[in-house]
Amino acid sequence: MPGYIPPLADFGFLLRDWLTINEHYAALGLEDFDADLAMEVVEQGGKFAADVVAPLNREGDEQGCRLADGKVTTPEGFAAAYHSYVENGWNAMLGDVNYGGQGLPYSMAVPVHEMLNSANLSWRLTTMLTESAVLAISKHASESLKATYLEKLVTGEWTGTMNLTEPHAGTDLSLLSTKAEPNDDGSFTITGSKIFITAGDHDWTDNIIHMVLARLPDAPPGVKGISLFLVPKFLLDADNNPDKPNALGPSAIEKKMGIKASPTCVMNFDGATGWLIGEANQGLACMFTMMNDARFQVGLEGLGATEAAFQGALTYARERLQSRAPQGVQQPDDKADAIIHQPDVARMLLTQKAFAEGCRALAMLYAKYMDIAHLADDERRDEAEAILQFLTPVCKAFMTDTGLESTSLGIQVFGGHGYIREWGMEQLMRDVRIAMLYEGTNGIQALDLIGRKLTRDKQGMLDTTYRALDTLVHDIEQPLTKQAAEQLLNDWYITSQAVKDFDAVNAASGACDYLHYTGYALLGVLWYSMADAASRCDNPNIAQGKQKTCKFYIERLLPRMQGHKAALFSGASNLLDISGSEFDYL
Amino acid sequence: MPGYIPPLADFGFLLRDWLTINEHYAALGLEDFDADLAMEVVEQGGKFAADVVAPLNREGDEQGCRLADGKVTTPEGFAAAYHSYVENGWNAMLGDVNYGGQGLPYSMAVPVHEMLNSANLSWRLTTMLTESAVLAISKHASESLKATYLEKLVTGEWTGTMNLTEPHAGTDLSLLSTKAEPNDDGSFTITGSKIFITAGDHDWTDNIIHMVLARLPDAPPGVKGISLFLVPKFLLDADNNPDKPNALGPSAIEKKMGIKASPTCVMNFDGATGWLIGEANQGLACMFTMMNDARFQVGLEGLGATEAAFQGALTYARERLQSRAPQGVQQPDDKADAIIHQPDVARMLLTQKAFAEGCRALAMLYAKYMDIAHLADDERRDEAEAILQFLTPVCKAFMTDTGLESTSLGIQVFGGHGYIREWGMEQLMRDVRIAMLYEGTNGIQALDLIGRKLTRDKQGMLDTTYRALDTLVHDIEQPLTKQAAEQLLNDWYITSQAVKDFDAVNAASGACDYLHYTGYALLGVLWYSMADAASRCDNPNIAQGKQKTCKFYIERLLPRMQGHKAALFSGASNLLDISGSEFDYL
Repeated sequence: MPGYIPPLADFGFLLRDWLTINEHYAALGLEDFDADLAMEVVEQGGKFAADVVAPLNREGDEQGCRLADGKVTTPEGFAAAYHSYVENGWNAMLGDVNYGGQGLPYSMAVPVHEMLNSANLSWRLTTMLTESAVLAISKHASESLKATYLEKLVTGEWTGTMNLTEPHAGTDLSLLSTKAEPNDDGSFTITGSKIFITAGDHDWTDNIIHMVLARLPDAPPGVKGISLFLVPKFLLDADNNPDKPNALGPSAIEKKMGIKASPTCVMNFDGATGWLIGEANQGLACMFTMMNDARFQVGLEGLGATEAAFQGALTYARERLQSRAPQGVQQPDDKADAIIHQPDVARMLLTQKAFAEGCRALAMLYAKYMDIAHLADDERRDEAEAILQFLTPVCKAFMTDTGLESTSLGIQVFGGHGYIREWGMEQLMRDVRIAMLYEGTNGIQALDLIGRKLTRDKQGMLDTTYRALDTLVHDIEQPLTKQAAEQLLNDWYITSQAVKDFDAVNAASGACDYLHYTGYALLGVLWYSMADAASRCDNPNIAQGKQKTCKFYIERLLPRMQGHKAALFSGASNLLDISGSEFDYL
Repeated sequence: MPGYIPPLADFGFLLRDWLTINEHYAALGLEDFDADLAMEVVEQGGKFAADVVAPLNREGDEQGCRLADGKVTTPEGFAAAYHSYVENGWNAMLGDVNYGGQGLPYSMAVPVHEMLNSANLSWRLTTMLTESAVLAISKHASESLKATYLEKLVTGEWTGTMNLTEPHAGTDLSLLSTKAEPNDDGSFTITGSKIFITAGDHDWTDNIIHMVLARLPDAPPGVKGISLFLVPKFLLDADNNPDKPNALGPSAIEKKMGIKASPTCVMNFDGATGWLIGEANQGLACMFTMMNDARFQVGLEGLGATEAAFQGALTYARERLQSRAPQGVQQPDDKADAIIHQPDVARMLLTQKAFAEGCRALAMLYAKYMDIAHLADDERRDEAEAILQFLTPVCKAFMTDTGLESTSLGIQVFGGHGYIREWGMEQLMRDVRIAMLYEGTNGIQALDLIGRKLTRDKQGMLDTTYRALDTLVHDIEQPLTKQAAEQLLNDWYITSQAVKDFDAVNAASGACDYLHYTGYALLGVLWYSMADAASRCDNPNIAQGKQKTCKFYIERLLPRMQGHKAALFSGASNLLDISGSEFDYL
């Protein structure tokens, strides 16, 4: 198997031709940034992903993580790769320049994150959660906590975690029972058990900073009584260096389907010392700061896996000779034609390609609005935030659901060989399957989209998102493409307006289908927009490839929308009328 | 996790109320068989699957198989379960009574096979392939070979294998290079290497009978030069007992995504002695005798996994308390409602249930036609064979594709817990993934359906299948249900007639979508038929449950047909116009 190849040409197209990133940076007053710099970052990040991180992926899956004497050991080479990542400043890409960060725009960092995911989903996870912890601390913690912890997390000297889930409190955090008792010195004593904690312990850094949801003694019940605490693995000495071990640690590593090189820990807090982040009982808001970032990043995991599976399948399909193509002999000098010439294999490859490049466009559009949300003036910022809120559950769920489909297709293109571990295809499918579950299952994303972001939304997130997409459509130059894009976007908007009137029961019943309906529609709009921009691109492979893939997407994948639309409007009774033994006749 | 529960009530409904099996047996002159006996077989088979085979499943996955000193060891308990299976006559269910078989109808054996798959996909595989080998020998081998080998395979004293695939010859068997040189005594010397050989070696029996495809020295090139040979692991002495080891053996066990308890071997034949089955150069026909049976049986693997995932998810969804249901508090005395009351969870469970019961109906209809094909007079037999030929690729591909979706939903209902190995959900998904690949990938099934069974068919398989389904529809008593079923069936038939005119390139381009279009349509017809029969059933849970699940299927799953139909008619150019660097811009 050849290694991972960073999709630089596609990033170049998206940044220069599609997002016209120079204008974007200029509008934000980012004078030091332009497309050349962006591509330099993408290229170097791709090189790191391909040369340093990707080679560890296969063996990491075989070795997995070990817990002995209360300490977690990660697979060979993982810690060294992390140290190199940190030394080269990659961990600090998005960090605040006042805390050791580089203050790069998201539109430069997101491609790097995608490529790290393609290279090694397990390895990337730890740094992803550190970034989420940085956000929570930056936005909600006291200046004192920031001064103590932020720079070391930004630079990657230490890593961060999110400790939310408990055995009986997953989706429903109102049930969580970890306790935080105030101490006289302003700190708190944390007691409880958390499960599914990514990188809860590891051998990469000399401290780990846990973000822990817990309840204060006088807290109201439910989610209104949850607070967020910063709980370090090692308490610090007077010079802010790790000193005494805190009363916490991993009691087990979960045995999982995939991402075996990522230590997923059961964490026990046995009277550990922590500090409140933000206001008491406002933990949910702090958590969502982390969570929204993590949700988009999990979407990027789906995209990364899709790209990796596409690359593997494409290489194999070009090399594997079996049978003759029905359209006529393609390789007369060989005993058979490469399977890429089989229409059904082309269908599978194009499905992967259409999802990879379509989701990449969605991710880069999201990144562009992240730049705006962080850097623009008030009105543009508010608009960008509304769009991001609407798109976050779509990115998370649609990019991971299509990640599963694409990695499964990767196996299918390989035939029986896809099922054998040495080829790597089956690992991608096992690894990416988690992305549909964590940071809120995809069902929860769907409820978030149709609930908070649509039926219960008072901020007009739908309209703002529609206008942003309408701008893209407006810029399409080819008349037929523009017309088709307009019709698709308007169909989606009209349908969404109808869904906006759903009551809570119909919304919950239609949630999943509305999310997929929306995902297919938005990707269609992005494909039309990309195909049009590509038609003016100098690179003939991009010009032709994008337009042909757009045609494939519109004719063969977009029609799935109709099935989702029919289900969406089919009402709640087909889900709720059945009960009890009518399920299993027992 | 509670263990596997055989779905006896559903089998009872299908046999008595839906297939009216007593009339079926009477029409075939099977005087000793009736529904009571069938249910006795199903009940005892279910008990064996649940009590003996299912408990080995989880640990089998952890232990896997080992190869040492040229011998394969299977997980603890696997061999003992097999011996019990054989002693209790289960292996002989379908076998010829003249060779130690019980001559049971398929309609009695197929439920047992489904349940064995639900219990343990790895364990079941070995016996499944023995049944396929029995068919090949029964139909094609000389009386002498039958006398020597058949009874021991029927009873299960020995097991059988299928040795087809080679490293460079999978889908395209014309490329296979294993050689067979004739010896003076009428035997042949077999030399070559085979991969992906299920149960190529194991520790269950004292002989293994390999069915091996190879080329004779003067064979024409391509598939017309392939012959089938019987090659035992141990050559027999004068009393037909295993004696000297034959020159063959496993050189490796593949490391796989799942079915780890099934030894998938690389087999080397180093001048092994074998005997020709059937005519020289007619190996492909002999192989298809095995293969068609195996394809339906692989479909049953998908169904078995779907049922197991449904049971696991249903139990969990009834017990797991998270959040309140949007339609109102369901369990006021608890801190939260069971997640089964969440509409989106009900959607996932009903998807699994609709696929499980719909595919079970398809499998039982198939089994009924297997009975007819084996036992009826000429005209009915020919009809049944045409229907079976048409339905075989649908059963194989649709039941395994929905098996993957259903097992993935099993994980999703469990949330993060679904990704942890101890809960068993992720194993089901890993195990069933192979079923989309072996015995012809699902892409090959789709090409078989749209090619041999439709566009290139001269026997009228489509019309015969249509008439069989039309009989089911004709028997529907509820007028509205009948009308809807008629329309669905006719839409499918009209579409299929249009597809019949496709040229080879358009057929290959539409193959996969036609297969799914057909799968959804046929399951819809079966659901209407079942719902109608259930409405007259004494068991109110079945009467209500079937009608409500039918409504769910028709309103929420059947609409997927439209997406497949649009793709089916979208032409070949969206697949074939793209080429070279337009795929990856490199």
